[in-house]
This record gives sequence, C-alpha cells and structure tokens, in this order.
Amino acid sequence: MKIVLAQLNYHIGNFELNTDKIITAIEKAKTEKADLVVFSELAICGYPPKDLLERKDFIEKTQAAMNQVATHCIDIAAVVGGPSINPHAKGKNLYNSAFFISEGKIQSIHNKTLLPTYDIFDEYRYFEPNTEYSLVEYKGKKIAITICEDLWEQQPVDNNFAKEALYTISPMEQLNPLKPDFVVNIAASPFSHNQRHIRTEILHAVSKRYQLPLIYVNQIGANTELIFDGDSMVLNSKGDVACRLNYFEEDYALINLDEIENLKVEEKEIDYIEKIHDALVLGLKDYFQKMGFKKATLGLSGGIDSAVTVVLAERALGKENVRVLLMPSEFSSDHSVKDAIDLANNLGIQYEIVPIQDIFKSFEASLAPIFGDLPFNVAEENIQARIRGTLMMGLSNKFGHILLNTSNKSESAVGYGTLYGDMNGGLAVLGDVYKTDVFKLAYYMNKDKEVIPLNSIVKPPSAELRPDQKDSDSLPDYDILDKILFLYIEKNMPVNEIIEQGFAKEVVDKIIRLVNMNEYKRFQTAPVLRVSSKAFGYGRKIPLVAKH
Amino acid sequence: MKIVLAQLNYHIGNFELNTDKIITAIEKAKTEKADLVVFSELAICGYPPKDLLERKDFIEKTQAAMNQVATHCIDIAAVVGGPSINPHAKGKNLYNSAFFISEGKIQSIHNKTLLPTYDIFDEYRYFEPNTEYSLVEYKGKKIAITICEDLWEQQPVDNNFAKEALYTISPMEQLNPLKPDFVVNIAASPFSHNQRHIRTEILHAVSKRYQLPLIYVNQIGANTELIFDGDSMVLNSKGDVACRLNYFEEDYALINLDEIENLKVEEKEIDYIEKIHDALVLGLKDYFQKMGFKKATLGLSGGIDSAVTVVLAERALGKENVRVLLMPSEFSSDHSVKDAIDLANNLGIQYEIVPIQDIFKSFEASLAPIFGDLPFNVAEENIQARIRGTLMMGLSNKFGHILLNTSNKSESAVGYGTLYGDMNGGLAVLGDVYKTDVFKLAYYMNKDKEVIPLNSIVKPPSAELRPDQKDSDSLPDYDILDKILFLYIEKNMPVNEIIEQGFAKEVVDKIIRLVNMNEYKRFQTAPVLRVSSKAFGYGRKIPLVAKH
Repeated sequence: MKIVLAQLNYHIGNFELNTDKIITAIEKAKTEKADLVVFSELAICGYPPKDLLERKDFIEKTQAAMNQVATHCIDIAAVVGGPSINPHAKGKNLYNSAFFISEGKIQSIHNKTLLPTYDIFDEYRYFEPNTEYSLVEYKGKKIAITICEDLWEQQPVDNNFAKEALYTISPMEQLNPLKPDFVVNIAASPFSHNQRHIRTEILHAVSKRYQLPLIYVNQIGANTELIFDGDSMVLNSKGDVACRLNYFEEDYALINLDEIENLKVEEKEIDYIEKIHDALVLGLKDYFQKMGFKKATLGLSGGIDSAVTVVLAERALGKENVRVLLMPSEFSSDHSVKDAIDLANNLGIQYEIVPIQDIFKSFEASLAPIFGDLPFNVAEENIQARIRGTLMMGLSNKFGHILLNTSNKSESAVGYGTLYGDMNGGLAVLGDVYKTDVFKLAYYMNKDKEVIPLNSIVKPPSAELRPDQKDSDSLPDYDILDKILFLYIEKNMPVNEIIEQGFAKEVVDKIIRLVNMNEYKRFQTAPVLRVSSKAFGYGRKIPLVAKH
Repeated sequence: MKIVLAQLNYHIGNFELNTDKIITAIEKAKTEKADLVVFSELAICGYPPKDLLERKDFIEKTQAAMNQVATHCIDIAAVVGGPSINPHAKGKNLYNSAFFISEGKIQSIHNKTLLPTYDIFDEYRYFEPNTEYSLVEYKGKKIAITICEDLWEQQPVDNNFAKEALYTISPMEQLNPLKPDFVVNIAASPFSHNQRHIRTEILHAVSKRYQLPLIYVNQIGANTELIFDGDSMVLNSKGDVACRLNYFEEDYALINLDEIENLKVEEKEIDYIEKIHDALVLGLKDYFQKMGFKKATLGLSGGIDSAVTVVLAERALGKENVRVLLMPSEFSSDHSVKDAIDLANNLGIQYEIVPIQDIFKSFEASLAPIFGDLPFNVAEENIQARIRGTLMMGLSNKFGHILLNTSNKSESAVGYGTLYGDMNGGLAVLGDVYKTDVFKLAYYMNKDKEVIPLNSIVKPPSAELRPDQKDSDSLPDYDILDKILFLYIEKNMPVNEIIEQGFAKEVVDKIIRLVNMNEYKRFQTAPVLRVSSKAFGYGRKIPLVAKH
C-alpha cells in the first residue's frame, strides 16, 4: 500500500485555501498511484478554530469543503481532519473527527477520544469524547485511525502530583483487539523546543508496544501564538522512524508500507536555539501573511532585544518590508544610537531618528501643575517609554506598518517594561524567549558574519530611562533570574523547593513576588509566539485578584 | 433539621480570610443550635482559582484550611467546597468537591460530575469528573450533595445546533434511587443580567421533578471579571422558593427544613438596569479591595461613558478616592468641559484640567520629517488619544491611582477606540454594557437628582478627535448597532439570518467586518466586568489570524 503524508500549512477559516491545498495534494498523489493520502487534524478548517466552532455557518462551511474534497477521491482514499456533528440527542454538538473518504464520498467518521484540556488546549470546550471504536477496511488492510492525543494516554502528569497518566481510557487498548494492520494518527501538535523529543518517544512507544506501523501527520505553520513544526513521520512495527518530514515547512512524502520494516532514518540532533530561531521566523511570517499584513516596524534601542527582533523580522519579511525608528532620550548613550544605526545598515533597512526630549519636556510642562516638585521617578520613566510607544503607533497608523513588540520572557515575567509603552505591539516576538536565550539567538544570528553589532550583545542591558540605569540595579543576573523563572513558570515549583535548589531566599521571594504582581501587565499585552512548554498567554491562566 | 445558608464573599488564594469567614459562620450557627451549615463551591480557596490549582503548595494550603475548619465542626456539621486530590492512579489530579464535615473531621467527599467547560468555564482543565454516587446520612436524614452544574444537566444548548441537553449524564438520576430526603447544591454561579431567571427555573424543575427540598448556596462577590450575585435559596418539595437570600451582598439564613413546605416568597421583578448597576458597583469595589487598591482615576470627557463610569466609581469607592483629569483638545467643545466640571462638582471629587494641544504640537513637530505633508488622519486622531492615555498613566504612576477604562461594549465591539490611548486602564467597567444600556444606566443614576448633567446624556456621542466628529458619521444609530451586535455576539447568529431579521445588508456586513477585524484590539485590553451571557474576554475565544 502506497501512502502519502501531506504536511500542509492551513489558515483558520480560509476554506478556499485549505480545500485547494488538500485537493492539490490528492491530485498529485493520484499521479503517483498512491492508495491513500493522510492530512492533519482539523485540516479542513485549520487548528485551533476555537469559538468559531460554535458558529453554525462555520460548521456548514467545513461540511461543504469536506464534500468538495470527497469528489476528488476517486481511485484514491484520504483521511482528512474536520469537525463532525454529534448525531446523538445529548452531549456537546461536535466531535473532533477524522473523515475516511474513498469512491467519491465520506465512508466513515472516526472521532477523537482523548480531548486535551490543559495548557493551550481546550478541546472539551467544543467536543464530545468518542466512545465507539472501529477500524477502516481498505484494499485488504485494516486501519486504526486515531487523532493526536489519542496516542498520548501514557504521558505522565507533570505538575508535582504523582500520577501515572492523565487519562483513564486508552483508545489503542480498544482498537488493538480489532487487529489493525497499521495505525494512522492525524495531529495538530504545536512546537515547543523540547517537544520533538517527547513526540518521537511517545510514537515510538505506541508503535513498538503494539508492533504496528504508524503514520503520523502533523500540520505546519503558525496560527497567532501557536507554531506547528510539522515533523510528520512514519514508524515501522519495531518503533523505528522510517521516514521523517521536514520541520517548519510544508512537505509531502510517498511511502510504500511494505518497504519500511528495515528503514531507519539517521537522526541528527538540532540545537534548540536553531529550532527557536526557525520557529520564530515562521511565526512572524505566518502572522503577517495570514493577517494580510506586509510591513513591520519597531523601535531600535541599540539593545539586544530589539536587535534580535529586527533580524527575525528581516528574515521573515524581507528588508524592504521592515522600517525602524531610533528614539533616543537624554539618557541614551551615543553608543546605543551608533549600534542601532550600524544594525539597520547591516540589514539594509530604512531607519529614522526621532529624539524624544522635546515631547518629554512638553509632558513635564503640562503635568507640572499636578506633579509639583515631586521627584523624578517611575512616572517620568514610563512617560518616556509611552512617548516612544505613541511615536511607533503613529508611524504604524500613518503607513500601515505593524508594530512588533520586543519584550523578552524574563522582563515580561518580572514586569520590567512599560504598559502602553515598550510593551506595545501586534505580536510579541520574543515573549517566550528568556533573556539568556536571546543572547544565544544573537550569537547564532552572527555565526556567519556580524549582523548584530557585538557591542549590543556584550554591553550591560539597560532601559536607559534615567541616568546610568542598568537592569542589574534591580534584578539579579539573568542566568540566575532565568533559572528561577523556569522553575516557577515551566515547572510550577513551590517557592521553598526553588530555594532548596540553592538560590538565595530573598532573591527568590522578590522574583516570585514580581512575577505574581505583574499578571495585570501581561493580561494586556500582544499575543506571544510560543516556543516553550509554558508560555505567557492563554496557556497560563492566573486569576488577577488572587492573593499569592 | 435546622440548616444555615452561608452566602459569603471569598478572595481567591486568601486562605486566612476565607477560613476566618467560614469559621465565623459556623460559630454563629452553633449559637443558634443549627444542625448544618452550607457554604458555596470551592469556598475554601475562592472561585475561580484557575491555574493556581496546578500548584502543589496551593493545594496543600486548601487542605490545611479545610482541616482547620473541621476542628470547629463539633456539635454541628458543614458542607464546604474545595478541591480534593484524585486518589486513583490515572486521570486529572483533582476533583471539584464538597466536603461533608462533622464531629471535628472530614466524614466524606462528594465530587462534581458535570464540569462546565464553555464560555467562562474551563473545569475540565483541572478536574476529573465524578463517577461514584452516595448520600450522606446525618441525624436521621439522607442528603444528596451536588455541586452547581450537577443540577444543570437539562439546560439546552444555545448555539444554533438542535440538541436536547449539553450532558449525557444526570447526577440526580443516579442519586434519586438512593432515596435522599433533601438535596444540597453548592454553587459558584456568576451573574449575568438574565441569569437569575434561568437559575430559579432550573432549581424549581429539579426540586419539583424529584419532589425534594433543595438548599442552594452560591457565593457572592467579584473576582476580576466575574461577578457573583449570591441569590442563594431554599426550595420546598413542590419547587416553590421558600427562602431567598440577598443579592450582591453577604447574607446568612437559618431555616428549619420541617417548616418550609408551605412557604413561598413573594418574588419582585428587578429591572435589569438596576441589576447591572449593582453588579458593576460590586465588581469595582471588590476589584479594588481584593487587589489592595484604594484610589481610582479616569479621564472625564463630558461624554456619557466617562460620566457613568465615574458615578459607579464614586459609589463603589467613595468620592475621596476618585480623582479625574479633563484633557480638552483643540476639537473639544466648551460645553464638554463644562459638563465634565459640573459632574465632578456634583460628585464632589477632585479634578484637574490638562489641555493636550501643546503636547500634540510637539508630537507633530517631531514627526514632521517622517509624516511630511500627508493629510491629518486617524494617525493624528490616535496620537491625541494616546497623549491622554499617557497623561492618565502619569497620574496613576505618580500617585498610585488605578486608571479605569470607560469603553462600552458597542464601541469595543466595532473597534471604536484607540489602543494604548482611551482603551488604557486596569479594569473595563462598562466593557460588557452596550451603549443603549449606558444611556439607561445614566437615567437610572439620575432618578433621584441630576448627578450626570443632562447634556452629557442627550448630546450626540463624539470622540472629539477632529472637527465636528460624531459617532454617527461612521456607525449606524446605537439602537440598530446594539441589536445587530447582540445577535452576532450573544446569539452567534449567522450573518444572513441577522439580515433576515430586517437589517440592511450593507449595515450588517460592515458591522460584522468591524467586529471581526478588531479582535486584536480587544486582545490587549483590560479585564471586562461581565454582566451578560457573553462578554468580551476569556469567555469568548476567537483566533486572531482567522479568515472570516
């Protein structure tokens, strides 16, 4: 049996585009005499469609698109992901389904049993879980069709409670007694920089345990925060990866099921910084393309965060589509301006310089009757950041450039940023990248030639909002800070256990207090491109009014 | 049997406060020789605790608090809501539980079966559903203990799909054969202005169907977006409401279960505008109190939204805690300034005037080299709004006042507001109130005397960001707009069906396009006090990159 894995980039709600991509792959597979083409989870509408699933017209469009795809499945079969209507009188309206299509029509619908509802997933919000199990019989083979999480029943629960598994049901334990010849798993499994390893382990375990070949098809492409890396694969019945598709790009592979038993691809370990880099470029590119935007802007400070962001933007959108402002204050060093200009010139992007002193003076004058002779403090620091934010949005509104936010995960965590100022922007490009990784990204970008001026990387980080200000005045070194943040945010570790790891109590207490008291700032910021297992944003829901 | 209903205002994660309130009610009930005290759902930690439930230390604190409560349950029993650890090897870590406590210890734990996961609810994220049913035997009575949604199995699904019920299981169908004498339901059921009616209907149906008395205890108080109205009640076995507790305030009632069969409270219908008014005052008050804030600020424009917001703030926080800025532009009418001053004087609150022309001129001058001779457009309009936003935040940062956002639901829906400008603020007080209801609120506030100058209510709404600007230049009349928005947002009605209701196609198309294209603005705004069945915020999840 010849099977095609179609790893495609779908756009949520863009039925014309999605259907066209699916049909094109089917037609190509026909010319290659393939028997079956496999597409990813909810391919017909794009993943995650969220509350659009609650719209009747949206569901009708998925049905029309699925029927259109079906007309092309003559002399070939396809497995296509899409929502299906729950025909029973009770329960949620929809199932998350895999449609098995052949002979020009939908032959059977296979529903997802395990509905992830944690972190960025909320599938129980929309779907009724499956309770019935059957195989597809096609050309003498029996196929067990599963959907993403259905194979993840063995994952341990990673939040400090001792639990063997997250789910009480195992779909494969239901399907295996029906004696399938192979397993298909259609997925929408987002990237996080350690996800690829876990994913392969899980699939390997399933395939080996049941001694069945496994066809795994994931989507690629970014939908706002979530970046899907593809990484579709075929495993043989020994659990070896016999074929692996590209990551971060569309891909297409034809395999012969009878010829995979002795195949084993050579795996090369990719450094996580390279993965993050590629993920962010894709995230940026897809955000612009799918939103219908072309041009980006940001403020270049001469510091490392805006430098790394602008390089990512140039790589995603092209130098002709990136335009920056330099907005020095009276506290900016000459070197900062020079570093920013050098960077803009290295990239060949348009830049302009708009000093903020005059505007700042007019704010001071207007507020003088109210502020009186109260000393310069965080209020004035923030006014400068907000003048910059307003200038950037002025450019954005006048010329249609989308403002990129340059905040990194470390400063976002501790609230080191000005709401409605430097926290402005349509997309937080580095919002899930710790500062220590921002440094690594900068060096990675410079690996062939110095794009980012070395001075921007090695000088002590500073917001330059008051004389001689440095990040280290109020924060511990970033390598300490980031370790504490990782344990608290990604690992949910209690404060006393973090201290037991060898960090000073007063430092840990201060950092955790800052993280908790700055939830309100993160509440109002741009979507964050997610590259870790726990990003700020809708995968992390902390009540604002809570006492910590 | 004498039963106390304890309707209390809990603070999420504030175990000391919550435990103290619970113990105080138990001690009071003891002095009155009550047999049983009933508290609300997740009372021990406050509702909704969200991802704090994933923290081991948070769960340990709930356990310690529950044990402390237990020591007070001597010669009295209590039903207290809290999370409990799932003792099985598989499944989610926690149950959403009711603890039955007597003789100084936890006697049994009763878990929630139906876990709402729609709109603002996401209980499947945290909890394993219950599968085991038992009654409590206490002083010769058998009690069926249920939790909130457990009694809501019969609610129809309200999103355009024909479905009989949202759930496939009925906890009462499991419990009733065990022959309970009465039912207890502990709840955390948030207010929406038509919720009270539905709630009574549901409880009436259950109590009448099973011919059982029903004790229903809800929490009161606001936790960020969600406002809980209380409205706890006792129904007799005929389904009549025998006793109803106050709404929007803490309350305590002692009833004798043997004396309720012929009781029926006289129900008086409360106008929905009064309910919204009281809900918003509570929402504001609790946000400040639970966040540890005291003072609020906002910009008074002379228009109706800021007028209604400042009156709510004064009623929630007291006139000494509200301070406002008037920030006229060159486009502001003299009348606007006078109306704002009159309002501030009527309320007796401090106000200052900071004209924005000079700052605006310095922005124009700084941007002139970039903007050249491009005509005045939305870029300059937004700069003015952002100058105001920056001034407000300057005051906030300097003096510690929390900025209130004054955007209403209609303008938020169509994106009629400036991000990082007038959309700034820590809490969106009117963000779930349509403009037509803002008018009604203003008249309601003026019912005894004219607090809000009549001119602010009757003049045509305008943002005053360019000469002679009026909302009606670019939007239909608010009574048309709000009806279309309601059908699309609250009712999820497809566009063609909205048009069939009698609205002009071009108007509907334009409005829906505006709603969809402005998701990005709402993504970055303050939490919205929720008063309807579908508010903007985390109960409505629309993907940003979707094609509509």
